[in-house]
Amino acid sequence: MARTIDFYWDLGSTNSYFALHLIKPVAAKHGATVVPHPFNLGYVFRHHNYVLMDEPKAKIANRIADLRRWARRYELPFRMPSKFPIKTSPALRGALAARRFGREWDYLEAIFAAYWERDDASVAELEGLRPIAATLGIDPSSFLALTDSEEVRQELIAETDAGLARGVFGAPTFVVGDQIFWGKDRMDFIDVELARQDTLSSRTK
Amino acid sequence: MARTIDFYWDLGSTNSYFALHLIKPVAAKHGATVVPHPFNLGYVFRHHNYVLMDEPKAKIANRIADLRRWARRYELPFRMPSKFPIKTSPALRGALAARRFGREWDYLEAIFAAYWERDDASVAELEGLRPIAATLGIDPSSFLALTDSEEVRQELIAETDAGLARGVFGAPTFVVGDQIFWGKDRMDFIDVELARQDTLSSRTK
Repeated sequence: MARTIDFYWDLGSTNSYFALHLIKPVAAKHGATVVPHPFNLGYVFRHHNYVLMDEPKAKIANRIADLRRWARRYELPFRMPSKFPIKTSPALRGALAARRFGREWDYLEAIFAAYWERDDASVAELEGLRPIAATLGIDPSSFLALTDSEEVRQELIAETDAGLARGVFGAPTFVVGDQIFWGKDRMDFIDVELARQDTLSSRTK
Repeated sequence: MARTIDFYWDLGSTNSYFALHLIKPVAAKHGATVVPHPFNLGYVFRHHNYVLMDEPKAKIANRIADLRRWARRYELPFRMPSKFPIKTSPALRGALAARRFGREWDYLEAIFAAYWERDDASVAELEGLRPIAATLGIDPSSFLALTDSEEVRQELIAETDAGLARGVFGAPTFVVGDQIFWGKDRMDFIDVELARQDTLSSRTK
């Protein structure tokens, strides 16, 4: 059976940008498919009564230095957006619309590149998703109507609730079988888990 | 010039246990010396008005699963202590006493093994450090007197303040030159930084 790696992401999560790219070679190595799930962090934080705290200046400075190290090491054209944080629910819903056109992954790549590489925060707005749809060869009007529909709104809530129900609490998160991996910095462990499954699977063949 | 890696640790920090072990091969590879600094996290959190928040159950469960993965991968006999958290200032001061006897690193290995491998929380108490001193061949009475002295108490504050002043905000933290690395999971980046310094140094020879 083909392996799947569930990937919970939010556009506003810096580490989701890195995770989106770093999971690809791991998945390719094991012939696994990455299945994306929009995960509404704003909704999750309200669910957990989580309050973003003021962090010490040294910690913020370190976070940015760390992100630069990751960008350099993996040769990703990452830059901190000038507008941060952003509202992400339209972009999250857009992924569910793109899924109906079979373009969910390309949509993810497009919005993450816009916001995290080109400092283009227009993708935080419903209207800003119009050119993204056009680039993907999807009719922009149908796409926007779907993205803004009650059906897709409910589906985003359901996707996020389903993540919460299986123990996902943040983004990026990867789930392989019953194993949950949180963060951009656990690719080695995902690799080990997939290798373990490969071994189990070859034994039962 | 021999490289140094400053290592800020607290006995109560689970990740400091892993960091203590994981930095060793990196240091050895570059002929660098790890210089430990006790860093009083309780004092730091008060300094930053940091409040430990109730975390969602899923996040706590994931943290423990993650620690088990690290222990397995690096073959470390880690186990979650039954008494947690503990007061760590006596153990932190003990390191400064051990420094005077030239046994600081061995002292670190001993207290971390007691608490994080053998579930022995006695090292959180001044009296519990008596057998540790004996094992290290240090006169236990002199050691305890020094550990409890006003001089060493002030030195712990000064060590912690010096860390804060250079931008350290948590434990484990490693500092190489002006680069700060927070966490047990940044060894690859420390390796890259040391390699960069090796190159610079060979160019100027």
